[in-house]
Amino acid sequence: MTKPSKRLLRALNGETLERPPIWLMRQAGRYLPEYRETRSKADGFLNLCYSPDLAVEVTHQPLRRFAFDAAILFADILLVPDALGQGVAFQEGEGPVLDAITSEEALKDLSLERVETHLAPVFETVAKLSATLPKDVTLIGFAGSSWTVATYMVGGRGSPDQRAARVWAFRDPAGFGKLIELVTEATVLYLRQQIDAGAEVIQLFDSWAAQLPDHEFDRWVIAPTAKIVAALNESHPDVPVIGFPRGAGPAAERYVAETGVSAVSMDTGMPMTWAREHLQARVPVQGNLDPLTLVAGGPALEEEAARILAGFSGGPHIFNLGHGIVPETPPENVARLVDIVTGWKGA
Amino acid sequence: MTKPSKRLLRALNGETLERPPIWLMRQAGRYLPEYRETRSKADGFLNLCYSPDLAVEVTHQPLRRFAFDAAILFADILLVPDALGQGVAFQEGEGPVLDAITSEEALKDLSLERVETHLAPVFETVAKLSATLPKDVTLIGFAGSSWTVATYMVGGRGSPDQRAARVWAFRDPAGFGKLIELVTEATVLYLRQQIDAGAEVIQLFDSWAAQLPDHEFDRWVIAPTAKIVAALNESHPDVPVIGFPRGAGPAAERYVAETGVSAVSMDTGMPMTWAREHLQARVPVQGNLDPLTLVAGGPALEEEAARILAGFSGGPHIFNLGHGIVPETPPENVARLVDIVTGWKGA
Repeated sequence: MTKPSKRLLRALNGETLERPPIWLMRQAGRYLPEYRETRSKADGFLNLCYSPDLAVEVTHQPLRRFAFDAAILFADILLVPDALGQGVAFQEGEGPVLDAITSEEALKDLSLERVETHLAPVFETVAKLSATLPKDVTLIGFAGSSWTVATYMVGGRGSPDQRAARVWAFRDPAGFGKLIELVTEATVLYLRQQIDAGAEVIQLFDSWAAQLPDHEFDRWVIAPTAKIVAALNESHPDVPVIGFPRGAGPAAERYVAETGVSAVSMDTGMPMTWAREHLQARVPVQGNLDPLTLVAGGPALEEEAARILAGFSGGPHIFNLGHGIVPETPPENVARLVDIVTGWKGA
Repeated sequence: MTKPSKRLLRALNGETLERPPIWLMRQAGRYLPEYRETRSKADGFLNLCYSPDLAVEVTHQPLRRFAFDAAILFADILLVPDALGQGVAFQEGEGPVLDAITSEEALKDLSLERVETHLAPVFETVAKLSATLPKDVTLIGFAGSSWTVATYMVGGRGSPDQRAARVWAFRDPAGFGKLIELVTEATVLYLRQQIDAGAEVIQLFDSWAAQLPDHEFDRWVIAPTAKIVAALNESHPDVPVIGFPRGAGPAAERYVAETGVSAVSMDTGMPMTWAREHLQARVPVQGNLDPLTLVAGGPALEEEAARILAGFSGGPHIFNLGHGIVPETPPENVARLVDIVTGWKGA
């Protein structure tokens, strides 16, 4: 790998920079009026994801306002089940709704064969972004991790404790394992094509990785993530993969050691001292400002941003949130944060 | 303190027992038909909590079926805001609803003065339990921790990210701190009276302790918990306090070190190796079976119970769940678990 020049890639390459690169989870989204405007032109959220011109437009929007070092493909982690043939609908104000899959038997209605053709519009979006992004901005592709995607497929919707998936996994680990395997294979196909279309970095979102007992965390979070990372490393050895095992707590250390991710994204509750010693000592870290400081603004935003900048300045670090931007965020607070980070002169 | 003879108190006293004591969070509850029957006689959930005869009955119910080593007072963490004068209602299928408090100004409608009189029926329940429980069964009193209770008071209901409380705390830490202080003082009054009425152990539930940035965790979880523990230690030095900082992850170590709790309850996601080294080395630990294994039953239940029994057998341990029993739990699986634990012959 030649030495990268883009700031995000340099950090992912292990460099400790004078100031970290910055991008924010959900930097394209409902807190921006121009996003709401574009979204209103699409016939629903899925249609927005599958319309390359609209998806390119919303990906670009935050970059016109803020000096982010990266753009992340506008898409959704549930495009994979949609591509596998499970019906996915986004209902206004309700979140996603799927026809729940609750047994191995139901897997026969899903198929890997249509994944790549179904997701072709996403690859077109990536290609268009690759051709149009400013040259110092890194393009990030992404997918949900197998476990998190499976929790929606089994539960039929998001749920605070992923009860349906977890009970199935306890009752019938072999059957549930087939679902995980299918999602894992689909995710590899999906991400390889994103990279072929121009994605320079991949992020794997495991938003529901919290509260899993050791053995379940090993089987459903670590093992499939390791498989995806190994497959991508084989086909695209130069593309870094950032893992985000949200809520993993102390298990994040094992996640980093055993999945082979290039970097780890930290949730808002990840203690700094622990993270420096157990995560940043191994790989570049990303995070972990509380997105609610962007709602509050003022001293809380200033102080928390400064604490994170200083605290992670001793090693490779990518400034980000610990969770996505929430819709009620005033865009001027995002501007203020970007100023703080890009103007950072070191601890 | 004379050497305790009850199994739970022995474990809390630091003894490593041949088999751990067992009780389960929400052991009295909707998974039991006799609970649903009793509840149907009360005019709503709050009325059930405030009717000593009914509350005593539902506390006793699981003990008639299962050989638990402890009973936990039947009550709710939101009795404290109710006693402070904030309207609390439990709507069927919806969970609790409160008239949200969103500014320091609104605190003037709350008062510590009526806390003890308002909660007198709870103390009567404790006294009746103390007089009627089998003599080897330990009576546990409880309250929510200040932070968790405050998140409901500010949000008006449970929410997955406690957004309203967290934004207020970021925007106006001084004002929010006054709410925390008020809840803390009310909780001390409440718990002292529970102990005076016969509670032998106290558990503090901090169900929403996850995902807090370091400084917020220090201010809103550790500091008020330390205050409650210190106040109880002062008035009732022989009564152990079990803390349950659910989702705290690596911060659980600091929680144990800095709050002064006698023991720590572990959520389902607490990795065993880490917990042994960083928690059990300091204090007795409690937990952490996934309650969904009780829904699944079968090999998952057997294997997870055995793993936890063996894994924590090297130090003081109280067998429990990592979260409360869920309503769809078959009671026969609880019976099976109690058999496994009480029949445990060591690793």
